[in-house]
Amino acid sequence: MKNFIFQNPTKLVFGKGQIAKLPELIPDNVRLMITFGGGSVKRNGVYDQVKEALKGREYIEFWGIEPNPHVETLRKAIDEGKRNQIDFLLAVGGGSVLDGTKLIAAGIADERDAWEIVLSGYADKQIRFASIMTVPATGSEMNQGGVISRAETNEKYGFGGKNYPEFSILDPEVTYSLSDYQIACGLSDIYTHVMEQYMTTPGQSRIMDRWAEGLLLTVIEIAPQIKNDHTNYDLMADYMLSATLALNDFIRMGVTEDWTTHQIGHELTALHGITHGHSLAIVMPGTLRVLKEQKKAKLLQYGERVFGITEGSENERADKAIEKTEDFYRSLGLSTRLSEVNIGDDTIKIIEERFSKRGYFLGENHNVNSKIIRQILESCK
Amino acid sequence: MKNFIFQNPTKLVFGKGQIAKLPELIPDNVRLMITFGGGSVKRNGVYDQVKEALKGREYIEFWGIEPNPHVETLRKAIDEGKRNQIDFLLAVGGGSVLDGTKLIAAGIADERDAWEIVLSGYADKQIRFASIMTVPATGSEMNQGGVISRAETNEKYGFGGKNYPEFSILDPEVTYSLSDYQIACGLSDIYTHVMEQYMTTPGQSRIMDRWAEGLLLTVIEIAPQIKNDHTNYDLMADYMLSATLALNDFIRMGVTEDWTTHQIGHELTALHGITHGHSLAIVMPGTLRVLKEQKKAKLLQYGERVFGITEGSENERADKAIEKTEDFYRSLGLSTRLSEVNIGDDTIKIIEERFSKRGYFLGENHNVNSKIIRQILESCK
Repeated sequence: MKNFIFQNPTKLVFGKGQIAKLPELIPDNVRLMITFGGGSVKRNGVYDQVKEALKGREYIEFWGIEPNPHVETLRKAIDEGKRNQIDFLLAVGGGSVLDGTKLIAAGIADERDAWEIVLSGYADKQIRFASIMTVPATGSEMNQGGVISRAETNEKYGFGGKNYPEFSILDPEVTYSLSDYQIACGLSDIYTHVMEQYMTTPGQSRIMDRWAEGLLLTVIEIAPQIKNDHTNYDLMADYMLSATLALNDFIRMGVTEDWTTHQIGHELTALHGITHGHSLAIVMPGTLRVLKEQKKAKLLQYGERVFGITEGSENERADKAIEKTEDFYRSLGLSTRLSEVNIGDDTIKIIEERFSKRGYFLGENHNVNSKIIRQILESCK
Repeated sequence: MKNFIFQNPTKLVFGKGQIAKLPELIPDNVRLMITFGGGSVKRNGVYDQVKEALKGREYIEFWGIEPNPHVETLRKAIDEGKRNQIDFLLAVGGGSVLDGTKLIAAGIADERDAWEIVLSGYADKQIRFASIMTVPATGSEMNQGGVISRAETNEKYGFGGKNYPEFSILDPEVTYSLSDYQIACGLSDIYTHVMEQYMTTPGQSRIMDRWAEGLLLTVIEIAPQIKNDHTNYDLMADYMLSATLALNDFIRMGVTEDWTTHQIGHELTALHGITHGHSLAIVMPGTLRVLKEQKKAKLLQYGERVFGITEGSENERADKAIEKTEDFYRSLGLSTRLSEVNIGDDTIKIIEERFSKRGYFLGENHNVNSKIIRQILESCK
């Protein structure tokens, strides 16, 4: 096991009716701005619950943080926050609203331009912020990361730092109104987050392996049931909690991580607007196919413990585990090939060039260069 | 899933050589007291590492916190802390030193007598404190609980509150010098902590079930290997991390808990000085035998997922799962029957009377009264 430091200060407030706790969670004396996306929270009742809970309190609203939040939009929110001396932000929405709000919180506290903060990879100063998470997927509600896009250049990068929300309210009932596609992309995102932290060198930590497998088994179990019924509380609670626990540092203690699939997926989103979770469903099977030899020992463990694959040669079992992984993504209703989303060789070439220019290598062994990235994309055609 | 609030602020600093980080972790401007047990840290090199790391810093030392820490001893430490205006405590040792230090931290900040704090069950004021944990077992290094004994009346109670350590350093290498018996009791404690949070009503949270099972499978896998070798770093790292993750709120999100075995075990320790982990190895199988009907659905799941029990009637499978549990505790080298530790009917009678007087019922369904407690102990004879 590698040495590690773990500390996650976020307060998780989980369950039915918890939005009503807002007045105890947000101090009286702050200057509050609430951030929103495009308006779905007005249709699913969350906006009304927030208004009701904060009746009598002053706050301003910032609307319009789009999916794959644009730094161009967030700069406007930062200006508005600075102008109003805002010192507390509440993000109400999905991962994009919250990721965007993490950058707003940093942008208000920091003199640097917002995109400069993203490119630096690290935000260490920010005003206080919290969330009501309505779309289980990114885990942003209990982690330090955010992913931001720049529309004018079709770029998309993650940044880290001290971006843990002060609290996050998770009410599974607010997920009942999500579309099939949102849920499919959410489940794909969750599954892939676990895989990025799990599908590396085996034998680093028995517990982390078991916990990652436990999340994968849970997602595989609930996915078909959720397809039939978005309004089963316990199912949606498991779905919602799995998103948080898949990416809040709990399953990465003392182990190496990959993140190749995410980095490539971000490019598909930046260049073609593919929804994040969908981009991962396309890339992950390709990553496993191309890195099969390097990941073989873990693929065998994964195949056995998650899919019950025990028959055949090592090679056959590894192939079977990869096949089952692609089957899982397809079972969500997502396509898993570039051709299905009309992406061709020209995009593969652009992505290869982008990584070649950046010059850094991906993966747990830092050996995934731009040529291997092209191979991965070729294998996803 | 039940509604829940989760927040665990402890910083975990895990791995080889991490004691050297002490100077960055303890602020310069605090008045520091370091608390110790009986001296094993002088033999295993931990004391020297601490002294080396804090060279040039001023602090006082308090020695002599005994196993099952006595409130009588802790009162002395509280007096010494107050006299020296101590505002930061560092516990160096096992669960007893740390649990005792939690009460010292509360006693220095609170006007109430230390035993009054314990009996109130809740400490909400305390000075800052942290730990170097040397005996993986109690999980105290990352939770809010402590268990304190009162020697003059042979009583032992837990208390909670805001008792999360500010940081805890866990270096698996310091466990190499533990005795076979300490490790056996530690593994028993860890296993039982998981069982108390898991062996309740099934179907509350798929993830919590999987994570609890993951910890149980890990402990079962490493226990025989550790018996053969205390100095395998990765094994001892898994052992050490399993103790922390078994009782730091991570596996109790949204689920009911039992704790019957612990409450009864505390009485065996209070009355006869049985080591905590050993008391649990005796009581847990009895709890399962007597509460078999209530716990049957979960026993079947546990039997199948942890021990691979799939053959026989439900009744046979539940019995088999209980038998396997007792076998596990015995495999650690611990006895699992009261007769083996020379405890007889008179003790059973005293314990029944104690719980009868207290008047509260134990267990996830609050239905374990003093008569059932007697039945549990009878079944452990």
